[in-house]
Amino acid sequence: MSAVLVRNISVLVTNSPEHGAGLLGVLADAALVAEDGRVAWVGPDAGAPAADEAVDAAGRCVIPGFVDSHAHLVFAGDRSAEFAARMSGRPYAAGGIRTTVAATRSATDEQLRANLRRLVTEALRQGTTTIECKSGYGLTPADEVRSLRLAREVTDEVTYLGAHVVPPEYAYHEYVDLVRGAMLDACAPYAKWVDVFCERGAFDADATREILRAGAARGLGLRVHANQLGPGPGVRIAVELRAASADHCTHLSDADVDALAASDTVATLLPGVEFSTRSPYPDARRLLDAGATVALASDCNPGSCYTSSMPFCVALAVREMRMTPEEALWAATAGGARALRRDDVGRLAPGARADFVLLDAPNPIYLAYRPGVPLVAGVWKDGIRVV
Amino acid sequence: MSAVLVRNISVLVTNSPEHGAGLLGVLADAALVAEDGRVAWVGPDAGAPAADEAVDAAGRCVIPGFVDSHAHLVFAGDRSAEFAARMSGRPYAAGGIRTTVAATRSATDEQLRANLRRLVTEALRQGTTTIECKSGYGLTPADEVRSLRLAREVTDEVTYLGAHVVPPEYAYHEYVDLVRGAMLDACAPYAKWVDVFCERGAFDADATREILRAGAARGLGLRVHANQLGPGPGVRIAVELRAASADHCTHLSDADVDALAASDTVATLLPGVEFSTRSPYPDARRLLDAGATVALASDCNPGSCYTSSMPFCVALAVREMRMTPEEALWAATAGGARALRRDDVGRLAPGARADFVLLDAPNPIYLAYRPGVPLVAGVWKDGIRVV
Ligand SMILES: [Zn+2]
Ligand SMILES: [Zn+2]
Repeated sequence: MSAVLVRNISVLVTNSPEHGAGLLGVLADAALVAEDGRVAWVGPDAGAPAADEAVDAAGRCVIPGFVDSHAHLVFAGDRSAEFAARMSGRPYAAGGIRTTVAATRSATDEQLRANLRRLVTEALRQGTTTIECKSGYGLTPADEVRSLRLAREVTDEVTYLGAHVVPPEYAYHEYVDLVRGAMLDACAPYAKWVDVFCERGAFDADATREILRAGAARGLGLRVHANQLGPGPGVRIAVELRAASADHCTHLSDADVDALAASDTVATLLPGVEFSTRSPYPDARRLLDAGATVALASDCNPGSCYTSSMPFCVALAVREMRMTPEEALWAATAGGARALRRDDVGRLAPGARADFVLLDAPNPIYLAYRPGVPLVAGVWKDGIRVV
Repeated sequence: MSAVLVRNISVLVTNSPEHGAGLLGVLADAALVAEDGRVAWVGPDAGAPAADEAVDAAGRCVIPGFVDSHAHLVFAGDRSAEFAARMSGRPYAAGGIRTTVAATRSATDEQLRANLRRLVTEALRQGTTTIECKSGYGLTPADEVRSLRLAREVTDEVTYLGAHVVPPEYAYHEYVDLVRGAMLDACAPYAKWVDVFCERGAFDADATREILRAGAARGLGLRVHANQLGPGPGVRIAVELRAASADHCTHLSDADVDALAASDTVATLLPGVEFSTRSPYPDARRLLDAGATVALASDCNPGSCYTSSMPFCVALAVREMRMTPEEALWAATAGGARALRRDDVGRLAPGARADFVLLDAPNPIYLAYRPGVPLVAGVWKDGIRVV
């Protein structure tokens, strides 16, 4: 594969303090060389080596591709009417997740694949070069396997979320036994991660521990939907079991915050959910000030948050969660990589994957300064221009 | 000019109650014919007439192009560092508007034109087919004339806003006399509207009345930046002088709301400003429930709100101002047209301009349901596909 040189970069975000200044490892007036799918060189534009192909950034900035570590993209059905009713305060006889489960089960592989690929492409156009994808709308062994199999076609970061909700045809303990037993046996070969929706009305502490431990015994990494709708044991269990990430983290006790700060478990915040459900936002500052590692992700799903836009999540993080523009961008790139226990993405230092985004902006503050505006001017994945 | 038929539209928003159902005049399973720059026909897909060219909407929705009735696009300079400091609670020795005035005055025509065209194109790509553009960063007769002359190159909706802020080189009354005197004389030939920033620290009630009356005497329509930062006389003056629009309307008394409701003056809300300054949003429900006409606009400007995205404003209106998705879309299309006293845009009935947008969505609820996601799949202006 030939080398690509991107020159005349106003601000290059490396997320590597060895290579640049500040939290974001910023290089001004910079250049980047990608070769064989990896970053081969970053440094001052004046000292850039020659390459087969040169791209002129024309004084615009380059950032690592977004790492969206939480998304639910394998589904069918439309819930826009439910959204409109919720936001307008009108009653709506909604089945919630179960509406999506029914539509997903009755969809063909081809329908699910088309929707999934559309969303992954849409995310890529918005700068997301790594995306996690969960099952959780199948809720039978066969339907969960199908979701994971389809997800694997588009990403390596595939998460088994049989423990999304208890489907109405099962008693609670019967379903928990299925999720940690036969369904796990069927799904584990297709997944990298196991996740549990630990919340009042979904899965309790005992079930969460049992399912996560069973997944770990099958070689899966751990993730938890934790403390979204109210206080609960999710974050403590995530830390206790050394999960890679506790996601949502909206209702935290001091002990939860301390536990996260003292752990390797990333606190993944999903502010698009609070935007789309008109709920209070998580307290990002409390987590950051305590020393926890914070990631931002989309939670793209048809029920509570149907955005695939990481730039929008960055803007929300700055407006609503008082993250600085730098903290928000780090969380949406390097933070997402930490939440996936990856060190090959989310940064642009030599050896990292050449996944990067050219923004139509002189610096990355513009992601929050220009909310809603599509600023992505180019996307490279594995050193290949894809947008 | 040849006729274009757009077929297989899932939901066609006409904003014409004669042609469809509800506030948005919705036609399901519809088609639209554009000819000679105008809408020639709307109706059921099954009854669509033949045309020279056919476009398949493939089950997606079509809405009128957004009418952004409030924008400040003629400027130079960068204020992203000021934004970052404001949002992060850091002190910043900012000159505010004056920073932009200094940069605008020292820019060349070509620099200003390039920035202006970039922003208008960016807005068009996001579905804005009519955009208003104000002067107000020149603040000398020559610099204001230059701004208006450049604005006229890109839009008919050009607004003289010499009364944006008092530049430091003038005493207050001296500047007011200039704005309503020699500067108005120089600017009136280039403008359709006159606008005053009526606010404590900007222009008071007397100056606002004098400047608006002088503008009206020169044949200009009236607009007012009113009640943004605190209570004040702006809205009352706008109604008293029959201005087309009172813009911002964030701090209103009951008398202000009643006056708007009893008038032809549109209340134009600019929620991107409150998003980007972390300020309380205007109370759209109070205005709507009182019977006032509400428009949504971007206020795109480098200081308080640098978004050009009308879909983002629609999403904010639903999330933050409790407008229904239907009310928000109406306000961003037909409402903007009312605020510009136009009946040829903001609706898709026969005779209206063929300015319309194909969304990558089955219905327009998606504008709020999928915040931040670029959903514009095609834009037609005067019947010509431009995106
Ligand atoms: Zn989730
Ligand atoms: Zn304004």
